[in-house]
Amino acid sequence: MTHLPAMHRLYVTSTAPNPRRVLAFLAEKGVEVELVELDMGRREHYDPEYVARAGAPVIPALELENGEFLTESVAICRYVEALHPEPNLMGRDGLEAARIEMWQRRVEFGLLLPVGFVFRHSHPSMAGFENQVPEWAEANRPRVLAGLEMLDRRLSSAPFVAGERFTIADITAWLAIDFMRVTRIAPPEELEALRRWHARLADRPGFQRPARPARKQTAG
Amino acid sequence: MTHLPAMHRLYVTSTAPNPRRVLAFLAEKGVEVELVELDMGRREHYDPEYVARAGAPVIPALELENGEFLTESVAICRYVEALHPEPNLMGRDGLEAARIEMWQRRVEFGLLLPVGFVFRHSHPSMAGFENQVPEWAEANRPRVLAGLEMLDRRLSSAPFVAGERFTIADITAWLAIDFMRVTRIAPPEELEALRRWHARLADRPGFQRPARPARKQTAG
Repeated sequence: MTHLPAMHRLYVTSTAPNPRRVLAFLAEKGVEVELVELDMGRREHYDPEYVARAGAPVIPALELENGEFLTESVAICRYVEALHPEPNLMGRDGLEAARIEMWQRRVEFGLLLPVGFVFRHSHPSMAGFENQVPEWAEANRPRVLAGLEMLDRRLSSAPFVAGERFTIADITAWLAIDFMRVTRIAPPEELEALRRWHARLADRPGFQRPARPARKQTAG
Repeated sequence: MTHLPAMHRLYVTSTAPNPRRVLAFLAEKGVEVELVELDMGRREHYDPEYVARAGAPVIPALELENGEFLTESVAICRYVEALHPEPNLMGRDGLEAARIEMWQRRVEFGLLLPVGFVFRHSHPSMAGFENQVPEWAEANRPRVLAGLEMLDRRLSSAPFVAGERFTIADITAWLAIDFMRVTRIAPPEELEALRRWHARLADRPGFQRPARPARKQTAG
């Protein structure tokens, strides 16, 4: 096997869903890495030096020991899985990997994206970041509920989102639901399978809500 | 290695971008599979029997010989890659797989999704399928151009979207640009690196525009 460069540093905003997806993935693996906290509210991810290195004004970004940067949370997770295969979170063979990716994408497009659109297009704190389209926020509220109902139907017949065991699809679903707080939408009480799954996973190491960092670290 | 079930049938609408992504992927592999053409315009993917089998009213769907269905075009491609590893389109080791997934997602969220939003929220043919938000279509037009500019910058320094060789990221980028026809946005002439890449790839087997099927096959 080719030598894979080790992780050097992970750039995060530890309260935002996509960085939290990678942090939860690392926590499930029991792997630690040096974190650099960037303040998205202060646009620190638009710093020209950061953009030049990361390739785009996005967080999270994983800096490797060879100086290369990886962005896109699911791509970063795939690299972490290659470095630290156990516990497996993205599939042990081609069929399981495809099944997990299928559920991961259903949750991403059916729940995480609509939650993000409601937030970005209706929350006052996003007015300076987004050319807000309030009608688009409203159009996505029923989609958030439809995404939750899809999950509830799935969890009525399987213990975890992608099937018999905990995977990255559970991480994405959990963080999407957690992120719903900013949209003031709560999962309806009658989605019992969803509620049971949520209660069962609450103690997992990756799902503890991060404290706001007491002191800011800066890049470089 | 676990035995992976063979492909049985692929359900497609061969003019739509996500089915075309899988069809192009198969064409690059030189692999054929029985196709079942569904007419999205006639909502054939909402047929209750199809939804029960595929798990969702979506196209494409890959039926395996064990009766299992896989949906989500990228998940289906990952399964095809497991069955037919060469030519490799999704990465030979963990680092390359992560790099390709990073670019695939940048193109998906930065170009394919905005193109889709412009189409779905402004095209008269979509009025019956979508609660159209015209303001959202307009908000996405500049994003389509930003996505093309991102690709042009990338292709100024690399021969293919994910780097040195042709991958699924090129397939997604190509089909997103092809899909732009329905939005009446054309790539600006001055994006020369993008234009050269596009011209260089035009003869590839997966990128020939499908004929509308002469006679409809039906599922089952």
